[in-house]
Formats: sequence, C-alpha cells, structure tokens
Amino acid sequence: MKYPSAIEKLIESLRKYPGVGKKTAERYALFTVNRMNDESIDEIIESYQKIKEDIFQCPICGNITDTDPCYICKDESRNPRTMIVVEEAKDIIVVEKTNKYNGLYHVLNGVISPSDGIGPDDINLKSLLTRLQNKEIKEVILATNLNNEGETTANYISRLLEDTDILVTRIAHGIPAGGNIEYADEITIVKAIEGRRKL
Amino acid sequence: MKYPSAIEKLIESLRKYPGVGKKTAERYALFTVNRMNDESIDEIIESYQKIKEDIFQCPICGNITDTDPCYICKDESRNPRTMIVVEEAKDIIVVEKTNKYNGLYHVLNGVISPSDGIGPDDINLKSLLTRLQNKEIKEVILATNLNNEGETTANYISRLLEDTDILVTRIAHGIPAGGNIEYADEITIVKAIEGRRKL
Repeated sequence: MKYPSAIEKLIESLRKYPGVGKKTAERYALFTVNRMNDESIDEIIESYQKIKEDIFQCPICGNITDTDPCYICKDESRNPRTMIVVEEAKDIIVVEKTNKYNGLYHVLNGVISPSDGIGPDDINLKSLLTRLQNKEIKEVILATNLNNEGETTANYISRLLEDTDILVTRIAHGIPAGGNIEYADEITIVKAIEGRRKL
Repeated sequence: MKYPSAIEKLIESLRKYPGVGKKTAERYALFTVNRMNDESIDEIIESYQKIKEDIFQCPICGNITDTDPCYICKDESRNPRTMIVVEEAKDIIVVEKTNKYNGLYHVLNGVISPSDGIGPDDINLKSLLTRLQNKEIKEVILATNLNNEGETTANYISRLLEDTDILVTRIAHGIPAGGNIEYADEITIVKAIEGRRKL
C-alpha cells in the first residue's frame, strides 16, 4: 500500500519539521488532501512564498525582518547604549517577549566552533565591531548559550573589547525559576554558585 | 512583540492542521525562517502544488488517486464480487494497510445527516447504485462509522438494496483488540453483545 507520489512527496517535505515523524507527516498530508480545498492549499503556498520573498535578515543587527532596517533598529525610542549579542535571530524573540529590555541587539548567526571548522571570521563579528565604533554603546551583554561554543565565543568577544571603554557583561546562568537544585546539572550548579550575590 | 506579517501568515496557515496549536505553528514557522534555505521552501511549495495538480478522486470509486482509474479499480487481480462502502477516501487506506482485503471500494464522500442538511442525493449514492448494476458484485460491506449518521446511512443503503440479490453486510463493531471492557463506551458494549458469536 503506497500513496500516490504527490502525497509521498508532501509527507517527505513535512517530515523536515522538528518533532514531525512519519505518522504526523502522514496525518498532515492526508488532511491536506481530504480536508483542504484548492483555496486553502493556495493560501499555504502563498504563505511560504511570502516567507521567501519578504523575510530577510536586518542588515544592521541580523534580526529576522520584513523591513529595512528591522523594527528594533529603526525604533528611536530604544536605548542605544546597550546591546545584547545573541547566537540566532530567534533568540531576540525570546528576550523581546519579556518586555523588559529596551536596548539593541546583534545576531552572530552562529558561534565559534573549531571542531566544526567555524572560526571568528565565519560569524557576524566584523559587523559587531563596526557597530561598536559608534561611541553611544556603553554595554555589550553577551547572551550566547551556556555550552563550549557559546562560552568560547563570549570569551573571544570579551577579549576583543578588552581595550575599549565598553562594559562587557555575560547574562547570568543558574538555577532557573521554579527549578529544583536537586535536578540541576553540574554546570548549572557551578554557574549558580559562581554567580552568587550578597543578600 | 509581533512577527513580520509573512511569518504571522504562515503561522495562521499551519494552525489549520489537526493538533497544531499556536505554539507548534510558531515553532514550524520559525524553523522555516531560521533553518530552511530557499531550496527547501521551494520543495515544500512544489509538494503542495503537486497535491493540487496531481491528486483527484477516482471517477469510479472515489479513492484518492493520481491515475484514472485508481490503482484498485484498474487492478484486474482484485475480487470484483465484493465491495466495501466507506465514508471517506482515507478509510480505504486503513483497510488496505491490513493487506487482508482484495475486493473493491466505494467512497460515499460523506454520510446522510439531516441535521446538517445532507440528504441521500448529497453523497455518492447514485454512482454506487450504477456500479451495483454490474451483476458481478455479490456482497456490499457497509463500513460507515458507528454513529448516528453512519448507522442511518448504512440502514438507508441496506433498504435500497433490499430487493436485489446482493448480500448487504455491516462490519462488526465491538471491543477493539487489546481493549478493556472496563473502558469501552456504552454503544460499543451494546454492539459487542449484539454481535456475540457461539464458541
């Protein structure tokens, strides 16, 4: 029992999504065939086409955007003295959702990872340094992830900025809200102790 | 914090799939933006286009197909004396996957549902009767679902064929394999008792 090849092809396409196995892809594909009319399918096709056509990375900060520059870079009410450096554009969304940060961002589009052959020149470091020549920026908050590559990248950037007047900070790592020490991993506990504050 | 409109549009499109809520649709959309290149997106677009172009219902039985007639209707090795009547084309897939049935099918494309204004003329009954004029068919197995509409439809077809030589049967309903009586619903238990067999 095989599906017509157009259905098999759609199943294969949808399986690329995270968490979508053969069964789920099959369910989506059959729903498309059985429950969607041409109009609904056209709407999906158009959505994907618009992603291709309209979405690009902000030439200033690397954020995902459909405007040049992105809504953050063009917002003059934002604090131009602070910049959070992240690995990926989607990390910006996580911070923005908190509504607690009003500064700028810079997306590295990766991390330094010698074992994968990714060096400092392969990520958006040059554009970061160019932006930092703007004397307005007083603090760079490094928000790369807490793993070897993220730490290496944060340390590398920190050294690059050693001789400038810019304050370089690293976001705190520790036990998460609602988290139980008992279940925290070793690295998190070490970071939590290192980052302790006087009460 | 809002996404660019192309991303919002894709999220809305993907939410139409069964079991896909806002969070999952968001995850798929961001994966599309962050992890897929134009080539991968083109592949998805092409998959949907092929569904629209290549897939249609078999003019004989109503099965989902990309050939006319479908692979079942054109397979001369299948038993032309038995026909399973189902509500939807996808029900054929369920039966075919068992590899235990070698007869024909007929898809009603719906069920009689007076409360939804769907009468006998609104489903593929006329084409069923035309097919049954072929004297080869000896048995019609009604495999509509076990609910009011499915039962009404099965009874209606059964009455229509009363005066013919065709044996009209209904698939068995009862406790499923691995099912526990304790957790079975009332209708299933009633059907299981009605359908009891001598051991």
